[in-house]
Amino acid sequence: MRYALVNCETYRHFGRLGLGAVFGSKLLKGIYISGDCDFPIPDRKAYNKVYTDIYKRMIETEAMQKYHDLGTPVNILALQELGALPTRNLQSGRFEMAHEISGEAFADHDLLRKVACAGCPIGCIHIGLLRQQFGPEHEYSWAGMSYDHEVLYSLGTLLGVGTRHGILRLINRVAQKGLDAIGTGVTLAWATEAAGRGLIDTRELGKSLAFGDVEGYENAIDAIVAGKSELARTLALGAAAAAERYGGSDFALTLGGNPVAGYHTGYANVLGQLVGARHSHVDNAGYSLDQKPRELSDEEIVDGLIAEEQERDALTSLAICLFARKVYDRPTVLAALNAIGIPWHEEDWVALGKRIYRDKVALKESLGFDYRTLQAPARFFETPSMHGKLEPERLRRLLALFNERLDAIRAAA
Amino acid sequence: MRYALVNCETYRHFGRLGLGAVFGSKLLKGIYISGDCDFPIPDRKAYNKVYTDIYKRMIETEAMQKYHDLGTPVNILALQELGALPTRNLQSGRFEMAHEISGEAFADHDLLRKVACAGCPIGCIHIGLLRQQFGPEHEYSWAGMSYDHEVLYSLGTLLGVGTRHGILRLINRVAQKGLDAIGTGVTLAWATEAAGRGLIDTRELGKSLAFGDVEGYENAIDAIVAGKSELARTLALGAAAAAERYGGSDFALTLGGNPVAGYHTGYANVLGQLVGARHSHVDNAGYSLDQKPRELSDEEIVDGLIAEEQERDALTSLAICLFARKVYDRPTVLAALNAIGIPWHEEDWVALGKRIYRDKVALKESLGFDYRTLQAPARFFETPSMHGKLEPERLRRLLALFNERLDAIRAAA
Repeated sequence: MRYALVNCETYRHFGRLGLGAVFGSKLLKGIYISGDCDFPIPDRKAYNKVYTDIYKRMIETEAMQKYHDLGTPVNILALQELGALPTRNLQSGRFEMAHEISGEAFADHDLLRKVACAGCPIGCIHIGLLRQQFGPEHEYSWAGMSYDHEVLYSLGTLLGVGTRHGILRLINRVAQKGLDAIGTGVTLAWATEAAGRGLIDTRELGKSLAFGDVEGYENAIDAIVAGKSELARTLALGAAAAAERYGGSDFALTLGGNPVAGYHTGYANVLGQLVGARHSHVDNAGYSLDQKPRELSDEEIVDGLIAEEQERDALTSLAICLFARKVYDRPTVLAALNAIGIPWHEEDWVALGKRIYRDKVALKESLGFDYRTLQAPARFFETPSMHGKLEPERLRRLLALFNERLDAIRAAA
Repeated sequence: MRYALVNCETYRHFGRLGLGAVFGSKLLKGIYISGDCDFPIPDRKAYNKVYTDIYKRMIETEAMQKYHDLGTPVNILALQELGALPTRNLQSGRFEMAHEISGEAFADHDLLRKVACAGCPIGCIHIGLLRQQFGPEHEYSWAGMSYDHEVLYSLGTLLGVGTRHGILRLINRVAQKGLDAIGTGVTLAWATEAAGRGLIDTRELGKSLAFGDVEGYENAIDAIVAGKSELARTLALGAAAAAERYGGSDFALTLGGNPVAGYHTGYANVLGQLVGARHSHVDNAGYSLDQKPRELSDEEIVDGLIAEEQERDALTSLAICLFARKVYDRPTVLAALNAIGIPWHEEDWVALGKRIYRDKVALKESLGFDYRTLQAPARFFETPSMHGKLEPERLRRLLALFNERLDAIRAAA
């Protein structure tokens, strides 16, 4: 099972890139990190000042407000409006049931409470109620499921599931099986379309697959994890591997080998996930670049993605939460570093981001990754994005420009 | 606060008779009971046999099925059908919103799970979801509230509250304040009618009272507990005491000083609660006697109540759960006692029940209770029961006969 995940603090997941599969292959159940050392603070007054500043901006400004209010599911209706909401294996950028599964609908009907990761004052984790009858004579059980944009996309719109209860059931199922929700959704969406085209025979899974059929998807998840048929074992390798075996690569929604996130915004999104170190939309936030109010040039897209990824590489090296990135602007980060006795200036910070970025590229290449052969499946060009239909030719141009920039980065090392 | 309760195992309550008030008056927070002795079992084979028999009859027969399925809230629609569901301070025996707050409706919409007291295989405690918005920006909190017939009656039908959410809110409020739900409901129902008749001025509570107005009732509960006005402090003594102060005894729904349970079935119910040792409907189950398929004579009612109470006195001395009373028939109880080395016959068992009953009567009388002056408020005769309008004259006859029987019991002592 290549898209097994690692869970952290119940509601947080290392979902992407198969970390759970790596753990499993090493018979590693978990990692417990503990410490009891103090970090000496040279200037407590400066420390308190910057701490208070960060804390206040987190809870008193709008910087993180949306993450606590509706959370990332606020994106569902926003992306629907833009026509950028991947639906039924990205056969469409709009989902006619979006209002039923929006962040607003979940909050109004299913939200039980919001919780926070340890030490965080925000509380961005939205817990929805899954209530299920499990037997006659009114036998019910319940569970609180955390939901966010990515699961509403991957187990909702992408699978044509237009009921909140259905999505919560699928969240529960992937949680029970320890799977990455995006990897699962992308694989099932591919399988649904592949079955419709006669490329695979879903009798190997025990039940048929159809967009919107929650029970079929629950069964398929169980069957894939059980691995009792060749199809099941192949689907456990993900959509790209399954497409390699059965055909249908044109609509296997992976970029750089990784199943894609829930945005069909445009070139920056596709390119960003192709070239990002983790092939994650949060590596360089291409989906955000696509939503700038004006059209960007090739240079603006490529340089924007690289600059953003370098900045995020530096930020995540501090173990910040990316939801807090608006709070951690450069002056704040430098003030924080100085307050704990690291007398950095902006150029040190910029150099750190560049170095980490370069090291990641070098690591990927040493492991065999080739930035020059990257491609995006045809589906990304068939279904209009919020920028209309994307042209394969422009993506090729963007990739060529990106590789030029990468050459320069390597040369500067 | 005379109707404060004592809570046990989260979802179980010593609700009636003000045990919480007694604890409070002695500054006693709680009692923890623990033990580590074994009880020697002389004949393990016989013990296992009777244990298995009891266990199987509990979980494999219909004896306790209704308590697990819908629980006692199954009574709501049954009593509605009979016209025996006390509504709006017993101004009616039917509630037009009964279907909205029935056991069936709670199970279909709100039931989260069923839990059991320690060691019990049944699980009769029904937990419903109370989900409340507590602030803007989609701030929600939730809690699981246990609901049963008595709270659906006392905080629902009796107060004209016809929404499940409203009832769950009131259950939550009395739970937070540590109040007996029946005592609270009966007092608020009296106050609502008394305010309508101009006997009390609800401005002393801060907000007006109206049947069905949940917010007004929440406010009143807080005000009564806070005790900042004479009316609030008087209502903290219960409906009977408040009626003594302000008038309106005719519609203060107490029997023998205790607020009544949720059945308006007929004479046996009224008489049973008047003369029961704890003035509880479960002392002698008059409501059940009233539901026999044929009309009973005075003798059948009086002797039936006394016999049932004596049997229950013996049963509860074994610390059984009264929901399991159909399992604990006499042959079973005697087999169980014999299996642990108590070689009792039926006459010993009958004598035990009679002795406990007699002792309880003697205790009550030594504390000043007078069985000869008992009366029921006029309301019980004004509103038709499932047996039609009750006649004060017949209740007087029943009380006279009961006192004859009590004389005989005392004489035999």
